[in-house]
Amino acid sequence: MRATIMYGPGDVRIENVPDAKIVQPTDAVLRITYASICGSDLWPYWGYGDFSKEGRRMGHEAIGIVEEVGADVRTVKVGDLVAMPFAYSDGTCVHCQAGVHTSCVHGGFFDNAEGGSAQAEAIRIPQADGTLVLLPGGKDEALMASLLTLTDVMATGHHAAVTARVAPGKIAAVVGDGAVGLCGVIAARRLGAEQIIIMGRHEDRIALARQFGATDVVSERGEAAVEHVRRLTGGYGVHAVLECVGTDQSMQTSLSIARPGGAIGRVGVPHDVTIPAAAPTFFHNLTISGGPAPARAYFAELLPEVLGGRIEPGRVFDSVVSLDEVPDGYRAMDARQAIKVMVKL
Amino acid sequence: MRATIMYGPGDVRIENVPDAKIVQPTDAVLRITYASICGSDLWPYWGYGDFSKEGRRMGHEAIGIVEEVGADVRTVKVGDLVAMPFAYSDGTCVHCQAGVHTSCVHGGFFDNAEGGSAQAEAIRIPQADGTLVLLPGGKDEALMASLLTLTDVMATGHHAAVTARVAPGKIAAVVGDGAVGLCGVIAARRLGAEQIIIMGRHEDRIALARQFGATDVVSERGEAAVEHVRRLTGGYGVHAVLECVGTDQSMQTSLSIARPGGAIGRVGVPHDVTIPAAAPTFFHNLTISGGPAPARAYFAELLPEVLGGRIEPGRVFDSVVSLDEVPDGYRAMDARQAIKVMVKL
Repeated sequence: MRATIMYGPGDVRIENVPDAKIVQPTDAVLRITYASICGSDLWPYWGYGDFSKEGRRMGHEAIGIVEEVGADVRTVKVGDLVAMPFAYSDGTCVHCQAGVHTSCVHGGFFDNAEGGSAQAEAIRIPQADGTLVLLPGGKDEALMASLLTLTDVMATGHHAAVTARVAPGKIAAVVGDGAVGLCGVIAARRLGAEQIIIMGRHEDRIALARQFGATDVVSERGEAAVEHVRRLTGGYGVHAVLECVGTDQSMQTSLSIARPGGAIGRVGVPHDVTIPAAAPTFFHNLTISGGPAPARAYFAELLPEVLGGRIEPGRVFDSVVSLDEVPDGYRAMDARQAIKVMVKL
Repeated sequence: MRATIMYGPGDVRIENVPDAKIVQPTDAVLRITYASICGSDLWPYWGYGDFSKEGRRMGHEAIGIVEEVGADVRTVKVGDLVAMPFAYSDGTCVHCQAGVHTSCVHGGFFDNAEGGSAQAEAIRIPQADGTLVLLPGGKDEALMASLLTLTDVMATGHHAAVTARVAPGKIAAVVGDGAVGLCGVIAARRLGAEQIIIMGRHEDRIALARQFGATDVVSERGEAAVEHVRRLTGGYGVHAVLECVGTDQSMQTSLSIARPGGAIGRVGVPHDVTIPAAAPTFFHNLTISGGPAPARAYFAELLPEVLGGRIEPGRVFDSVVSLDEVPDGYRAMDARQAIKVMVKL
């Protein structure tokens, strides 16, 4: 089968690999119909992380058709249309029961997984019963795009909002206007924020953020950005910061714009980030929360929202490529020519 | 009047200073009847922080009688018995309304304040209406001790439990067996924790912790402590960590014993603490919260508990000194001969 392999920074290729297959009786094999390129896929593209000479198998967001199931799989069957969150999980362990599926004791991440990754024709799904989410059928492409976002990007924006404790009447700031940040705007609005400040500088993304519910835009960086947010919030800062980038600058900005007692929900995978222990975090009673989104857990809350048309996170996809065009998709996202790229197989 | 001044590490003296007096019309002057020595007073005693040649005025926990009020004071009158939380606050600003009184826009801390501090015969209370809490009269010494703890140590233990998200059925660990940690045990039990692990090694304190509701004791440090907590929790770690020390070792232990999705409520003022940004904090979805306790806010919840005899945090005082004996009190706490020292005037 064909799959995406990254051999080094900027070096993405589509190659033939061994077919995905059942290894454990709890596995399924998924024939992928829609996948996508994630902002986090750009970190190795930019040179962060190690590469073996076999390269890295890429992709962790997908929708597909169940092609084969192991002997112990009970909840999905061959032919089902399902979504695959970016982490697999058994759904039954103590951490899954607590809603922290990304820490499942029998779980793991699909990125560069042994059974392959999602920017490919097919993928092995460990813990298929706990992992896969049955979707209603249909051919509505816009709906499929929104459903696809529940496997990562919309779940991640929602996680940022939840861990930043967005609630009715609160003021939220979303740091980063990438696809996660845009989904963070959707989540913040959905959870009742009365003011939503998007912090970013790309016109197309800002425009979409406004359509999703952003009320204010801050395009400066560093101290100027902090000052602008303060002006927008009576000098007090915001209650909830959705940190959707993962750089040290974005983290320091997040800490600086939070008002005393506020919370930072961080979902940008941290790269060379420092969290000061005393000022402002301790003395301002800031809460720092977040991490990898338990996307599997959030399907229960978000799937009806997508199916009911109340949120349309699929609009973050502004580019569609075939599997063979995936390297072009990486280039477009790297160059900020695309917000997020869908891979249609 | 007489007051406590620290001139340098280990150098505590009782000296004559100008009388406390009204400066602003919102001030009161409090004649102190009970004060105490705080674990945080030991940090400068051990050499942390700067000293001017005038020294540092010490003390921030007190009960007393209102001796004089400014022209604008409305809620307390001369002769009232009141408690003074360790921070003053107006009670009306946006942060006070949000319950973060330690960040009051017109507030501040009594430690080394311009109007003097609480290990003294009297003290100026800025923002008297917002700051002071009226107490019922009476001469019950044990009750007075417990009321005194609401000005800091019990409020701080409670804040650790609240920010660590202790709730019915949760497993909590209290890092540190000082007076704050012991109050943390009281708070964790009160908020419904089903298992409470006290981490400390002083027999008298451990015994008191057990009386307050601790179910398990971990006396190791570092990796051995982490392993012991894991054995006590099915290998998973605890839901809620009350970090009541403020050293880097206590913080690293706290992060290591929290289970995925768990929370650390830190109230030990951080000294040379590092918070790692990626593992385990981000990848385990840990929440790091806490800071200076809004003691003023917590009176509403905790005062009835003390008056009703349902909690007895005053038992952390195992030594009583006169004002002139305050230097002995510092020595006793430094030598771990006293858990917490009350100053009776």
